Amino acid sequence: MYDLLKGLTVVEAAAFVAGPSCGLYLAQFGAEVIRIDQLGGGPDFKRWPLAPSGESLYWEGLNKAKKSIMIDLSRLEGRGLAQRLAAAPGEGRGLFVTNFPATGFLAYEPLKALRDDVICVRVMGWADGRPALDYTVNANLGVPWMTGFSDDPRPVNHVLPAWDLITGAYAAFSLVSAERARRAGAGGTEVRIPLSDVAATTLANLGQLAETRLAGADRPRQDNNLYGAFGRDFALSDGRRLMVVAITSRQWRGLVGALGLAAEIAALEAELVVSFAAQEWVRYQHRTRLNPLFEAAFARRTAEELAPAFEAEGVCWSEYRTLAEAADDRALFDDNPVFGRTLQPSGLDYPAPGAAATLPGVRRGEAQGAPRLGDDTDAVLADLLGLSSAEIGRLHDEGLVAGAT
Amino acid sequence: MYDLLKGLTVVEAAAFVAGPSCGLYLAQFGAEVIRIDQLGGGPDFKRWPLAPSGESLYWEGLNKAKKSIMIDLSRLEGRGLAQRLAAAPGEGRGLFVTNFPATGFLAYEPLKALRDDVICVRVMGWADGRPALDYTVNANLGVPWMTGFSDDPRPVNHVLPAWDLITGAYAAFSLVSAERARRAGAGGTEVRIPLSDVAATTLANLGQLAETRLAGADRPRQDNNLYGAFGRDFALSDGRRLMVVAITSRQWRGLVGALGLAAEIAALEAELVVSFAAQEWVRYQHRTRLNPLFEAAFARRTAEELAPAFEAEGVCWSEYRTLAEAADDRALFDDNPVFGRTLQPSGLDYPAPGAAATLPGVRRGEAQGAPRLGDDTDAVLADLLGLSSAEIGRLHDEGLVAGAT
Repeated sequence: MYDLLKGLTVVEAAAFVAGPSCGLYLAQFGAEVIRIDQLGGGPDFKRWPLAPSGESLYWEGLNKAKKSIMIDLSRLEGRGLAQRLAAAPGEGRGLFVTNFPATGFLAYEPLKALRDDVICVRVMGWADGRPALDYTVNANLGVPWMTGFSDDPRPVNHVLPAWDLITGAYAAFSLVSAERARRAGAGGTEVRIPLSDVAATTLANLGQLAETRLAGADRPRQDNNLYGAFGRDFALSDGRRLMVVAITSRQWRGLVGALGLAAEIAALEAELVVSFAAQEWVRYQHRTRLNPLFEAAFARRTAEELAPAFEAEGVCWSEYRTLAEAADDRALFDDNPVFGRTLQPSGLDYPAPGAAATLPGVRRGEAQGAPRLGDDTDAVLADLLGLSSAEIGRLHDEGLVAGAT
Repeated sequence: MYDLLKGLTVVEAAAFVAGPSCGLYLAQFGAEVIRIDQLGGGPDFKRWPLAPSGESLYWEGLNKAKKSIMIDLSRLEGRGLAQRLAAAPGEGRGLFVTNFPATGFLAYEPLKALRDDVICVRVMGWADGRPALDYTVNANLGVPWMTGFSDDPRPVNHVLPAWDLITGAYAAFSLVSAERARRAGAGGTEVRIPLSDVAATTLANLGQLAETRLAGADRPRQDNNLYGAFGRDFALSDGRRLMVVAITSRQWRGLVGALGLAAEIAALEAELVVSFAAQEWVRYQHRTRLNPLFEAAFARRTAEELAPAFEAEGVCWSEYRTLAEAADDRALFDDNPVFGRTLQPSGLDYPAPGAAATLPGVRRGEAQGAPRLGDDTDAVLADLLGLSSAEIGRLHDEGLVAGAT
């Protein structure tokens, strides 16, 4: 928790990864983020993995440091409440993040009717409103055919929902940017962020669209090679594997030196009349000549033996670890100031992260857990909408809202 | 190009993906983004893929809509110029994005000495300054052991630099957030964003750290299955494959209906005494029973045959396409208003994207290409540092700066 965004109140009505991660990033930078939760929880409230208590570790991970108001969104009056929260009056309010459809009760127009300068950041599947999820967008844009090994004909899905996660961070960027413009007098706006456009623009930004259109064909599958430079996995003497990358000249020289390959590399350079240190792509072009030298060098050593020289030479490398191995790494989690301990709805005690960013010299507030559904129902109705106790009581009596039980 | 960030001037000294994509997102939202380029270009200026002219399609993709000043960063006076640009005076200036080391001439302290409220967003490898790249962080956190098939013992690298891309968007979010705090009177700050912390926090946010620590073991590899719900690739009658996902009840019912599987699914539900529509995880738990029904149904049909019913039912699906196939999809690229045509340094004409976000009803400015190195050297020295023509001439004469040739 940092307080860069102190004074902003963002209302979130969102499920899955992109929308909730947007709200998470905003909350961890100090915005008040209020989730609108459907009675009993939205479609991802019980998403796996689950805690022994049945609570979703996924949901509580993505909704840390937020508040929750629980509303019956199936009824007209409940939908009206959600609209009024999204378009709440006041400076630093009227900021809404959602993945609800662009048509329907959380469309932009009804919100704008309530507050002319409302800002709505909407995560979408396809730009035209058709449904898409990270995994279908990924299949559509060709990434599973790029991933994996050339000796295996199957497409390989990614397991990290990369498009969702990029979209979540980009949505947080968009919201803060639109709020800046509003304060500068530009009024409000809807910002639509379709996963399909995030994926299409990203592959174009990386040069891969242009490359493919120029070639009229796909880049061949790269196995575990880094395209265009030296980077690959190698087997070690104990059967483990490591990933090593040499992009800069310094990284290359450090790697060659640490492995004691200088003489062999010099001989190969003389034979091929090239300089591997000078240009990264020369290492890629001649990788089938380089690889046997490195394979032999790595096959004689363990990561423990390599580590001192690699650290001294600034080599860019890592063993391949499983997440279970990484999870035991206290430097990465328990002893990392980015992580803290906090009470989560599951009742479990495990390292919970704050913002991925660190502001040196600035106090990082305590880690905060996710709310229980409806934890903040009454306070939000009073604060954002100015409702009286009697009005709030009526909403409870009629089952339009509910608090945590 | 939208103008949400009009009035901001951001100086970028960065290579690889995360830093430049941060600057790209800022530029496409209307900030003036000025790259500091080393004489002759930085370490990624000739990164593959290349155009026939030898220009990097990758570099020009990530540096669209930016300006470029070329400085000899190997000399003390050149380094001083870079510091003064990063910490340039004036409202909306003194905003710096870099992946240069946290120690050294672009450390925060010398910048703060020049401008007390300078903001520096620094992309890092490890939080302690050790080098790391997307691919080594990925190996370190276990994602390659999660990716791919349980019948193949090899780790699978991702080809999409997901950690870099998430970091780039998060860095843009961080810069705008820090600038908001500065205008609110909080002063400047350094914001450090290590790839390692982006990866560690993300896996924790998704619940995977907690899951792994609770289990004391890794989740088994999932092949192409979506964990915890119904989602997988299936072969079609023409040998092609599709990815289909049913997370919500509506998606599930639509899929079952469109494939004509209602009776068989009902029989299976009766046998197992479950409701597949009610809970997504039940579909995952019983996937080995469900999969044969779906495999048979898909094996009888092509995507063309399925499309009308799938669209009508709101099924979430996509064929697996290669990027070359996707690149021919005019709706995704040529006819997509997110893309435009612009002159790039390579001299090539291909669809170039603006911001991934769309603001309905707001005019999207023309697509803009990348600069040539040093295109804006003199203008930037005059505008940001107030140098006279004589002073700028001296810098050229002494080889400290250079313009485009």
